[in-house]
Amino acid sequence: MFRTARPAAALTLSLALLGCAAGQALGQGVDLSAAEADRAVQAVRSTPGFTAAVAHLDRDHDRIVAETITLTEIPAPPFQEAARARAYMAMLEAAGLSDVEMDAEGNVMGLRRGTGPAGGPVVVIAAHLDTVFPEGTDVTVRREGTKLHAPGIGDDTRSLAVLLGYVRALDAAKLTTTRDILFVGNVGEEGPGDLRGVRHLFTQGRYKDRIAAFFSMDGTLAPRITSGAVGSRRYRVTFKGPGGHSYGAYGLVNPMAAMGTTVVEMNRITTPLRPRTTYATSVVGGGTSVNSIPDAIWLEVDMRSESPQELARLDKQFLAIVDAAVQQENATRSTAAGPVSAEVKLIGDRPTGATRENAPIVRITAAAVRAAGYSPILGSGSTDSNMPISLGIPAVTIGSGGTGGRAHALDEWIDVAKPESLKGMTVGLAALLAMAER
Amino acid sequence: MFRTARPAAALTLSLALLGCAAGQALGQGVDLSAAEADRAVQAVRSTPGFTAAVAHLDRDHDRIVAETITLTEIPAPPFQEAARARAYMAMLEAAGLSDVEMDAEGNVMGLRRGTGPAGGPVVVIAAHLDTVFPEGTDVTVRREGTKLHAPGIGDDTRSLAVLLGYVRALDAAKLTTTRDILFVGNVGEEGPGDLRGVRHLFTQGRYKDRIAAFFSMDGTLAPRITSGAVGSRRYRVTFKGPGGHSYGAYGLVNPMAAMGTTVVEMNRITTPLRPRTTYATSVVGGGTSVNSIPDAIWLEVDMRSESPQELARLDKQFLAIVDAAVQQENATRSTAAGPVSAEVKLIGDRPTGATRENAPIVRITAAAVRAAGYSPILGSGSTDSNMPISLGIPAVTIGSGGTGGRAHALDEWIDVAKPESLKGMTVGLAALLAMAER
Repeated sequence: MFRTARPAAALTLSLALLGCAAGQALGQGVDLSAAEADRAVQAVRSTPGFTAAVAHLDRDHDRIVAETITLTEIPAPPFQEAARARAYMAMLEAAGLSDVEMDAEGNVMGLRRGTGPAGGPVVVIAAHLDTVFPEGTDVTVRREGTKLHAPGIGDDTRSLAVLLGYVRALDAAKLTTTRDILFVGNVGEEGPGDLRGVRHLFTQGRYKDRIAAFFSMDGTLAPRITSGAVGSRRYRVTFKGPGGHSYGAYGLVNPMAAMGTTVVEMNRITTPLRPRTTYATSVVGGGTSVNSIPDAIWLEVDMRSESPQELARLDKQFLAIVDAAVQQENATRSTAAGPVSAEVKLIGDRPTGATRENAPIVRITAAAVRAAGYSPILGSGSTDSNMPISLGIPAVTIGSGGTGGRAHALDEWIDVAKPESLKGMTVGLAALLAMAER
Repeated sequence: MFRTARPAAALTLSLALLGCAAGQALGQGVDLSAAEADRAVQAVRSTPGFTAAVAHLDRDHDRIVAETITLTEIPAPPFQEAARARAYMAMLEAAGLSDVEMDAEGNVMGLRRGTGPAGGPVVVIAAHLDTVFPEGTDVTVRREGTKLHAPGIGDDTRSLAVLLGYVRALDAAKLTTTRDILFVGNVGEEGPGDLRGVRHLFTQGRYKDRIAAFFSMDGTLAPRITSGAVGSRRYRVTFKGPGGHSYGAYGLVNPMAAMGTTVVEMNRITTPLRPRTTYATSVVGGGTSVNSIPDAIWLEVDMRSESPQELARLDKQFLAIVDAAVQQENATRSTAAGPVSAEVKLIGDRPTGATRENAPIVRITAAAVRAAGYSPILGSGSTDSNMPISLGIPAVTIGSGGTGGRAHALDEWIDVAKPESLKGMTVGLAALLAMAER
């Protein structure tokens, strides 16, 4: 996941820029005012059941932290989430959910039945199982007081543990909801997964036609509500050439040079701050041996924007850079044994969109943030919510509470100091319960 | 291996440039004139035994080709030569050599005793077992008439098979020599091996104090005599940075950019044609995932020159480029989470040097080339001979005969059409026998 922090006014502006007038966003529910949302959340929070659930989260806090550590230490690289998924499925079962299962894509889930008729609308709350870190990354958790350090611990393993805490708290408090709630640990949120987990959930899964609202809990920051979907385009470009002996074939074109020029030229692009637009030259590989001119070098890049227009512009610039880099290398060195060429493969493509600001799920989540004592930070991001948003299903991405930083870096960390951690958890719990009554 | 083709006059010039006056090159034997060398080679070639040996190579030609294919199809990446080494050791044994063994480094060898006293001087002829191609490369030989296509087939697998042909031919012809001849299949000639096989042979091996002359048979071209050692410097540079989320941490320094700048700037260097000086940006890797700013990207480069001064100049330029690329990236993007740095590791360092042109091994090999009907092409290269040359031991690298091309590329090939193939083989045989009588 990642999301930008931005005041609500700016989001409204951005949604207007995206052409998302309220009338166009069907299926996101009847508009709700901020005052109505505040009342709905207050109704939830003022029940003895809610108080009892929060008291249980407090008592259960050490266990939630322990489960965060247990799950973090089960590696879950993209497409290799199975071991962690099996462990999490067992935890969902132990927490007392029904219909616990792993679907064909590898998502695991369990249902908490509401009081409404079976087969009715479902509110989903999901956290993703995968991390960005490749096989072999040391995922041992290092603890310093309340600070826990490990790759993937905040993005998104803590959220998995918080969902388990919610299930146990709701049961301990004997809280019932009208709608069913589906708790999900999903695969494929990060990079190469390209949202395969939620894509399956919404297009193939057994609940696909019943999902009335979707929360993705991703990252820690509790005041943040991600209702805008940042679009992305990702490429893997393979530069190919004839290759040859570094000394004997000296002077032949080198695909490494075309890759280097592409990296340098892409890193010269300046992007607008608003709408936020970013790129990264991120992964690279190739070559035969140190004493050979390589015959193939591949490069992966990531481009994102809150604006489809800016994304399209960046995309076009990148493709032109690749072409120019190839032409430049073929003009600079000998093509006697063959030219350099580039094979461009689109490996990720996420649509830009938004759940509108006055949709009930956004209003209610903002009210839950306020009720916990925070100021809501609305923003856009590239998270599992992109998928339901692209399908017109109400969705936001929320935080798991506590603090954290350095997501996607080896020195990623979270702080589980209890007051802040617990306070943050109440946001998701109140928003979930309020949406389960609508 | 690789070697440049150059007329003898140019080599003399180059040796003078290198400061290798005759008096400095000790241990390479008493000077020999071209006429004396021609007489010595004629003495060998005019014996009935030599004629019988060549007749045997002719009859044995299909087997030599079959063994070339068998050995080529056993993958032998750098540091993974063991399977091919074991197969070759069995072939050395089957060919009837004595004292067949694998040494501690993985070289395999067998002795053909001469008529001189046991423990006397030994003439070594070696071919290297390793190829540049990594694990998983398809090494299946594709045959089209007399043309055989496969990675590593000419560099240097054919030479291994030709050595076996020599052993059988000498035995069939009942040819004896004064000196012992050691037939070697050695490891570690290519790139990362950094001459570990011959280094062991000359500094640790059981014959290390007995080697009077060294032939490396490497590549096909029979007229070529490599007596100059092209020096090389090889680096693996690891660019490191803080890493982070491609969207959330956008704006942080990216080690990929520093790598890209290094590749682009190095590929802008122009090097002199004479003394031949080359470089290659050859192997690259790194990155966490497509949606992360990488925390480490490594790059391997190869630099070579016939001149130590030019090599030192190139080396300095490269190191300055790396420094400037790192500084540029740190000046261009944010170092808030840490700067980009470069860890520079020297992974290969071969000295420049030469066996002087009037040393017996060079004169005799040139005479053997002429006697077969070719014009000698003296030159410099980076081959197993670099090691003995650096130790002052007479050494040249010669060809296995036939024709070939595209060494170090996946479309490497050789042509085993018999007249040319056989004619080429007589060069090494005559030179070897003449040196074994000195």
